[in-house]
Amino acid sequence: MSRFWNPVVQTLTPYLPGEQPQMARLIKLNTNESPYGPSPTALAAIQSQNNDDLRLYPDPDGAALKKAIADLHGLDPKQVFLGNGSDEVLAHVFLALLKQSKPIQFPDITYSFYPVYCKLFGIDYQTVPLSADFSIQTSDYQTPNGGIIFPNPNAPTGRALPRSEIEALLARNTESVLVIDEAYVDYGTQSCIPLLRGSTCPENLLVVHTLSKSRALAGLRVGFAVGHPDLIAGLERVKNSFNSYPLGRLAQAGAIAAIEDQQHLEETAAKVIQTRERLVKSLAVLGFDTLPSTANFVLTRHPEHAGAKLHQALRERGIIVRHFKLARIDAFLRITIGTDEQNDALVAALEKILASS
Amino acid sequence: MSRFWNPVVQTLTPYLPGEQPQMARLIKLNTNESPYGPSPTALAAIQSQNNDDLRLYPDPDGAALKKAIADLHGLDPKQVFLGNGSDEVLAHVFLALLKQSKPIQFPDITYSFYPVYCKLFGIDYQTVPLSADFSIQTSDYQTPNGGIIFPNPNAPTGRALPRSEIEALLARNTESVLVIDEAYVDYGTQSCIPLLRGSTCPENLLVVHTLSKSRALAGLRVGFAVGHPDLIAGLERVKNSFNSYPLGRLAQAGAIAAIEDQQHLEETAAKVIQTRERLVKSLAVLGFDTLPSTANFVLTRHPEHAGAKLHQALRERGIIVRHFKLARIDAFLRITIGTDEQNDALVAALEKILASS
Repeated sequence: MSRFWNPVVQTLTPYLPGEQPQMARLIKLNTNESPYGPSPTALAAIQSQNNDDLRLYPDPDGAALKKAIADLHGLDPKQVFLGNGSDEVLAHVFLALLKQSKPIQFPDITYSFYPVYCKLFGIDYQTVPLSADFSIQTSDYQTPNGGIIFPNPNAPTGRALPRSEIEALLARNTESVLVIDEAYVDYGTQSCIPLLRGSTCPENLLVVHTLSKSRALAGLRVGFAVGHPDLIAGLERVKNSFNSYPLGRLAQAGAIAAIEDQQHLEETAAKVIQTRERLVKSLAVLGFDTLPSTANFVLTRHPEHAGAKLHQALRERGIIVRHFKLARIDAFLRITIGTDEQNDALVAALEKILASS
Repeated sequence: MSRFWNPVVQTLTPYLPGEQPQMARLIKLNTNESPYGPSPTALAAIQSQNNDDLRLYPDPDGAALKKAIADLHGLDPKQVFLGNGSDEVLAHVFLALLKQSKPIQFPDITYSFYPVYCKLFGIDYQTVPLSADFSIQTSDYQTPNGGIIFPNPNAPTGRALPRSEIEALLARNTESVLVIDEAYVDYGTQSCIPLLRGSTCPENLLVVHTLSKSRALAGLRVGFAVGHPDLIAGLERVKNSFNSYPLGRLAQAGAIAAIEDQQHLEETAAKVIQTRERLVKSLAVLGFDTLPSTANFVLTRHPEHAGAKLHQALRERGIIVRHFKLARIDAFLRITIGTDEQNDALVAALEKILASS
């Protein structure tokens, strides 16, 4: 604490990311990284830019990366906003689009960074409870509101809504922005990006993506948002009042190559989906209840074993999963889908833990 | 414009960085990049991290980079804050430390991003005129204020204050934070970092650095601030409420190696200083008045030729320098110090332009 802090700083409770332990030989299933590496063409593109030209500033607008994203998704580059990871994209979204006179709405159980942004920027919000089965009920989102944001699939539940339901929500919610955070969309969820194509693009729908999950580039820090050009222009104003150059030369080069290698994404995502289905079955055999997931993680609980204890017991065996000390999901573990071998080791460890307690 | 923007967004006039033209064979002397590449060990360190581990998040705290910076400067790692370029560091500084009930103060002619941050975060400010010779008069900075910020050397003038004068200002200004932006310090200006060492570290002095200039890594995006641990803790709170992972794995690895290669910095900075002195002499022969600079750029004007016209005429010859359409410095050109060859080409071009007009 310092008397020189702005008063708001004293009230902040920053977001706490899953830990990044520096020990080797851990099985790290706690921060939803891809168990497979990024596209080899992304690594090659980075290497091609790793030279004396690093003395030069990058393109502040990231025009080539915007074009690659627009081309992949059938959009115009003016519909693309870039950021230093989707967390930075979201920060700018909260300030530029979700700071309104009315409170915004998001689920009571969701990405725990949302309330942190609200605190930072002085945004009023209401949480909307998930239903008893931990699904989002779009009918619970009432107008008027200052904006609506949720991930699809939701985190940390893994549960997704079909695109048609989001379309229906959008049809009702015409007076504020609807932000769909599609960080985990590539593991079996319908993306809302097709709604943004062409002249029928809604003026109040924004979709946020990251290259940290299915593109396996969490270490490079690239995210983006796509939406109506007018929404993007507002985000650009804030970005250019904050940091002209959020994406360096290596990040832009690697991201372009990764975006262009859709085959690598599809192959690795298919493997993750296969492992997920295998893990869900193994967990069921051990007596776990697992929420239906279309993400690269599952949220699971055992009726007789507390989440916190299992988390600690796994940790002692060198396996790191995530446990949230939060109402309603305190009993659960969130487990990232790793390789088959990693998830087999997890299941074997759980089996021993359950047998010995 | 969109009705979904936060009202503040409509009032923003974003910072306009010097252009980054994509054409080859330009002589680019407009954004104060180093004419020499970064430390070869930085490129090697980046390459060593350019592998499948990019699928993993970076260390959110950047502990190893903080330690490298602390070791270089004789500080404790708790005195170091990291950001995605010093522009991001400054953005967090404005929100965390300079948003106060009283207006902050900075020079009327200075880094033009400062008023942009103020607009973004709703910070009241007063500009303090430079004296007629474009130097900062610290006696003009009056208490009470919400904070004081200026670059040393100042940009775009290149003029520096001795450390003793900043120390004297600090002795008077005990009730608000004093931020010294040392982006260009390595070309002949005394750094204020020694004031931060040990138990006499003032609780209200913050010094901001970038790796984009003398470390020749503008394309990598790394900056940092050093100061009292309590000031740093406030910045960390804001950073962790905005983006947990501003620095990717490649940026951290490259920055560590660059920080550790002080010899490369000193050798390349010495060459830049030599070229600067040579350029100043050549400009004098052509009749230019050049402000005394301890930066890697000079601010210069010709009594008979308008800055805007010279800027345009150079551009037509493939040489890009910076011209600011701002009161008091409208007549000037800001010229980045390039290689001897680049600056000789500039002087030859100016000679022809002056002769032909």
